[in-house]
Amino acid sequence: MRNVIVTGAPRADLALVDQLTPLGVATVHEAIGRAGYLGPGLRPIQDGTRVGGTAVTALCWPGDNLMIHAAAEQCRPGDLLVVTTASPSTDGMFGELLATSLAARGVRGLVIEAGVRDVAELRTMGFPVWSAAVSAQGTVKETAGAVNVPVSIGGQIVRPGDAIIADDDGVVCVPRADVRQALAAAQARVAKEEQARQALADGQLGLDLYGLRDKLAARGVRYVPEGTPDGLG
Amino acid sequence: MRNVIVTGAPRADLALVDQLTPLGVATVHEAIGRAGYLGPGLRPIQDGTRVGGTAVTALCWPGDNLMIHAAAEQCRPGDLLVVTTASPSTDGMFGELLATSLAARGVRGLVIEAGVRDVAELRTMGFPVWSAAVSAQGTVKETAGAVNVPVSIGGQIVRPGDAIIADDDGVVCVPRADVRQALAAAQARVAKEEQARQALADGQLGLDLYGLRDKLAARGVRYVPEGTPDGLG
Amino acid sequence: MRNVIVTGAPRADLALVDQLTPLGVATVHEAIGRAGYLGPGLRPIQDGTRVGGTAVTALCWPGDNLMIHAAAEQCRPGDLLVVTTASPSTDGMFGELLATSLAARGVRGLVIEAGVRDVAELRTMGFPVWSAAVSAQGTVKETAGAVNVPVSIGGQIVRPGDAIIADDDGVVCVPRADVRQALAAAQARVAKEEQARQALADGQLGLDLYGLRDKLAARGVRYVPEGTPDGLG
Amino acid sequence: MRNVIVTGAPRADLALVDQLTPLGVATVHEAIGRAGYLGPGLRPIQDGTRVGGTAVTALCWPGDNLMIHAAAEQCRPGDLLVVTTASPSTDGMFGELLATSLAARGVRGLVIEAGVRDVAELRTMGFPVWSAAVSAQGTVKETAGAVNVPVSIGGQIVRPGDAIIADDDGVVCVPRADVRQALAAAQARVAKEEQARQALADGQLGLDLYGLRDKLAARGVRYVPEGTPDGLG
Amino acid sequence: MRNVIVTGAPRADLALVDQLTPLGVATVHEAIGRAGYLGPGLRPIQDGTRVGGTAVTALCWPGDNLMIHAAAEQCRPGDLLVVTTASPSTDGMFGELLATSLAARGVRGLVIEAGVRDVAELRTMGFPVWSAAVSAQGTVKETAGAVNVPVSIGGQIVRPGDAIIADDDGVVCVPRADVRQALAAAQARVAKEEQARQALADGQLGLDLYGLRDKLAARGVRYVPEGTPDGLG
Amino acid sequence: MRNVIVTGAPRADLALVDQLTPLGVATVHEAIGRAGYLGPGLRPIQDGTRVGGTAVTALCWPGDNLMIHAAAEQCRPGDLLVVTTASPSTDGMFGELLATSLAARGVRGLVIEAGVRDVAELRTMGFPVWSAAVSAQGTVKETAGAVNVPVSIGGQIVRPGDAIIADDDGVVCVPRADVRQALAAAQARVAKEEQARQALADGQLGLDLYGLRDKLAARGVRYVPEGTPDGLG
Repeated sequence: MRNVIVTGAPRADLALVDQLTPLGVATVHEAIGRAGYLGPGLRPIQDGTRVGGTAVTALCWPGDNLMIHAAAEQCRPGDLLVVTTASPSTDGMFGELLATSLAARGVRGLVIEAGVRDVAELRTMGFPVWSAAVSAQGTVKETAGAVNVPVSIGGQIVRPGDAIIADDDGVVCVPRADVRQALAAAQARVAKEEQARQALADGQLGLDLYGLRDKLAARGVRYVPEGTPDGLG
Repeated sequence: MRNVIVTGAPRADLALVDQLTPLGVATVHEAIGRAGYLGPGLRPIQDGTRVGGTAVTALCWPGDNLMIHAAAEQCRPGDLLVVTTASPSTDGMFGELLATSLAARGVRGLVIEAGVRDVAELRTMGFPVWSAAVSAQGTVKETAGAVNVPVSIGGQIVRPGDAIIADDDGVVCVPRADVRQALAAAQARVAKEEQARQALADGQLGLDLYGLRDKLAARGVRYVPEGTPDGLG
Repeated sequence: MRNVIVTGAPRADLALVDQLTPLGVATVHEAIGRAGYLGPGLRPIQDGTRVGGTAVTALCWPGDNLMIHAAAEQCRPGDLLVVTTASPSTDGMFGELLATSLAARGVRGLVIEAGVRDVAELRTMGFPVWSAAVSAQGTVKETAGAVNVPVSIGGQIVRPGDAIIADDDGVVCVPRADVRQALAAAQARVAKEEQARQALADGQLGLDLYGLRDKLAARGVRYVPEGTPDGLG
Repeated sequence: MRNVIVTGAPRADLALVDQLTPLGVATVHEAIGRAGYLGPGLRPIQDGTRVGGTAVTALCWPGDNLMIHAAAEQCRPGDLLVVTTASPSTDGMFGELLATSLAARGVRGLVIEAGVRDVAELRTMGFPVWSAAVSAQGTVKETAGAVNVPVSIGGQIVRPGDAIIADDDGVVCVPRADVRQALAAAQARVAKEEQARQALADGQLGLDLYGLRDKLAARGVRYVPEGTPDGLG
Repeated sequence: MRNVIVTGAPRADLALVDQLTPLGVATVHEAIGRAGYLGPGLRPIQDGTRVGGTAVTALCWPGDNLMIHAAAEQCRPGDLLVVTTASPSTDGMFGELLATSLAARGVRGLVIEAGVRDVAELRTMGFPVWSAAVSAQGTVKETAGAVNVPVSIGGQIVRPGDAIIADDDGVVCVPRADVRQALAAAQARVAKEEQARQALADGQLGLDLYGLRDKLAARGVRYVPEGTPDGLG
Repeated sequence: MRNVIVTGAPRADLALVDQLTPLGVATVHEAIGRAGYLGPGLRPIQDGTRVGGTAVTALCWPGDNLMIHAAAEQCRPGDLLVVTTASPSTDGMFGELLATSLAARGVRGLVIEAGVRDVAELRTMGFPVWSAAVSAQGTVKETAGAVNVPVSIGGQIVRPGDAIIADDDGVVCVPRADVRQALAAAQARVAKEEQARQALADGQLGLDLYGLRDKLAARGVRYVPEGTPDGLG
């Protein structure tokens, strides 16, 4: 791990991010080619919240939140702080005091592949958090790490300035350069889904709506009345 | 995996299932001999919901929801769709559009040993779901599987037409042929528990109510005042 | 496992425990030297509840809740029951009836490194529970265990009579002899945090508030403008 | 769980099983339609052993091996004992003494979705075991279960008398009625693989051997020289 | 965590430990009442090794091996070093150099609830290790911890000076004061098992040898010929 | 996921990689600043093998090995194939036939964050593999993915052409541009460790060799004779 704090990282266009956010994590993930989802391991500590912003990243030593303090200084309004650790940890690296600090700087929320604590207070404050764990286990401030370097969570790479969207389905990362294209694709998808929703509500089947009957046949799926004797494969 | 869609599967008597449902998952599981519980890995995406119905089963390839679409056609009012994958997966195979389709067909809910997404929308719709994960990770529709074959979740076998009951404690499966017997046993258990509840609320101990003092003695459990020196076993 | 029920275990001073409780799990854990936290694996079945009390411990065989019944008799008002198993288990060892019995004896809640069931009913009753799982899987009453022996959960040792505090962040154990000292340390911490909260809300950085800039420099952390070529280490 | 010991269960034809066994777990699993594999959670305690036989099943309470003793009586030469528990357990339910007993009855090995112990002695004896864990944790003999009922491991259903084959890749179950068909399909597969092996060793690519180039094109996979700018999806 | 290094900890009688060791982990665990087993999560990095000694304990911060160096000084010939972390970690806290140091002091092996590295070299050296993981992930030496305080691994409490025995089945801890009693009980068990082994090898069943037929009947287990229709429970 | 096969990816200088390899995974990981380790989840299927080479990457759909076939064509002598999946999977995506094909192309081994099968045959062939699982579960060839795009395993980013070194401790990735610098740093580290090894073998303590006594004191670690009463923190 290079022990650096990268300053002046460019951000994705926040106006575009703010248009992308209400479309939701699942839609955006699909729109960019089923990519960028940080995995089911990151869960919200609150229900019904959807936020978007630009990533500031922090890479911490397990059991140590020194670099979160360093990262706070690099944050500006519209950012979401994205934290991970050099090896897996569930320790409670973040709580009410850090949230107070970030909120004062205009940070919109936290995504952390580790633990958080003071969750009752965080809910009361309305500071949104997606984390890998809730844990009261305290941390130290002894070991160096990095701020605004590329990090990897759930098999996805998050670079400083990327767009981050988070809701009840989890967290998705859109590369900074792809946000405009992602917005167009996501909006097209929403329009198409609206049509599908109506058809399905009217009783049409996905088999017909998506033309899947031929696919089933082509893959050798047979319809068999219950009770028919049936051999292998 | 046999690539078949079994049609015309018989269902458990829905009127009996509807009598069994309000007795709850834990009671029904006990009443059928501590059997049929699909395990703590399936959690509801909503709180305070209890539903019952008859199983339509789908066996999908990991990362692929083709067979859920095929299963939808086999569903009828009163069914619960039960989905698993050929190997473990947390991908978000089910969301708002599929729920819209199932709801239009009278399906009462989903039990899925994989992931779901659009959970905010699913909660708003009031479509109940028990799943192994929440994940926005999208899936494809490329690989064959099976509908209405026996599947296995949490070490239990679920056959098409079995009764499924789900609530905040998880999901239980009652074999189709056993529903009437299960109902009688569960009702008897409820009556017995009501008596126990009153006795315990009045301060009686389970040790006495269930005659456990002799059991403890027979198994060599000794009462030892605090501070007594005490050797092995 | 010694098959004993230890009677007459002394308790921590309940008046002190009741002063310690509102300070919360994270604060108390920090105040006793980042110790005693039972880990992120124990989660509340309810939100927004904070309770404290004195530990009665039960060590059960997996799949067997015989010793919970034996433990109930050893409980008195102000206690919290702390249950674990001889090897890991998620079975639903505790439900509404046992909660009714414990509530009748003045027990304030349950901490269990295993499963609970009837969670809808437990929430309705207002009986607070922290558990490793929710599971309807039933248990038997066949195998001996122990009551009020030291047990270990999440790498921490819980002794009968220790103070237990639990809230949305999890569960912390304070050794019986340390409660007074813990209270003083926790109160001092709360006072100090109140000052920090105000400073951070006013925009001061943790880097300055906690004097971390020197630490970063001493550990070789460099500030690097974005785009600077950068070698190893 | 029904507390029964089913006697007189028919077995798959052992002569056919003995022909199927040397073809190996992976080949047999493929030959029956990518089915029957008990999952990567069952690992051999020894290297380089491949055995086959007919299943005798035991369903035990966690932490309790009473039913393994009951199952031993139902075993006959050519059988493999298949054990699981009513809820997940890693306890060491099986060791040298039980292996001695089974070996004396002509049992060919053990498949257990729980723990085993005395692994040094088992290796010395040459009694083959596939297990979910190695654990010295002892068990009791207190709670009823079942012998020769259908059980489920790794999402697969194992019925008494089914063919079981196990090697370094894990364990596969072939339904009793399908063994002859499985043998023919597996032999055909082996013949086909032998051809493929030679072609691949000679430098032919799977892309050509299996005709995958069209598949890639049909799915929109593009060949892009390194360094080409590249947008979404 | 109290930041202390406790000096002068008394040890179990090494001559007794050396008599206990060859009886093996499983036998000793049984002999002390099915207690003290540190769980299936600790696996040997080598096969076929059995060692015993007296515990020196170290409690480290995750990702930090400072206290292992401090612990080395407290070790003397006949000791086994037992290491855990304040919260779960798989980092490679121990390797060839530390093993060289411990071997030079007469330490007999390492038990670590975290990771080790240089495993090829450790095997070549013949320094025995039981660990929770193999990991090359390096650690720092920045954060305080404790030496020779009670620690907890796998739900068991290990105190400085306790006897530790480790083999292919894992690791067991015998309280310092109980070693003599454990030896007598383990030797008795070995003698009894030798008789059982012969009887079982001769074809006697555990059902008869341990008198289990009555137990089965008392618990309602019925013998049912295959094919008999069979209701619930 | 972009469905692309990137051709003509440059490789790290193989002569340098071949000098780096014998220094081992742990040393190289330390030499590049405790970076690049792919985590304890990747384990060798063989003991005592150390290989190095240049990465060709493949990103597959779970349960689908189509892109491994596509990746084989992009491999050349000196490469190691690095495979991961779009979401976690343990399926056996790779076996003897693919190994035969890769070996014919001069590929030195496989690193796969998924399952492999035919492990007995792979060991016999001497084709080295590091994998997340051993599983006979077969896969299909139906869904697109990518070859030679950056992938992420264990929180580390692997880019095509990076140096990969693997041994009994796991797998490390060195960025292509850093190999020369890594070699110098690793060689320096080896020299330094040789000195330390001798000192430690002679009985010197790490406490003195690394100057840790002051660190302990500065962090408040106190030496306390056994039996001393001791308060909090």
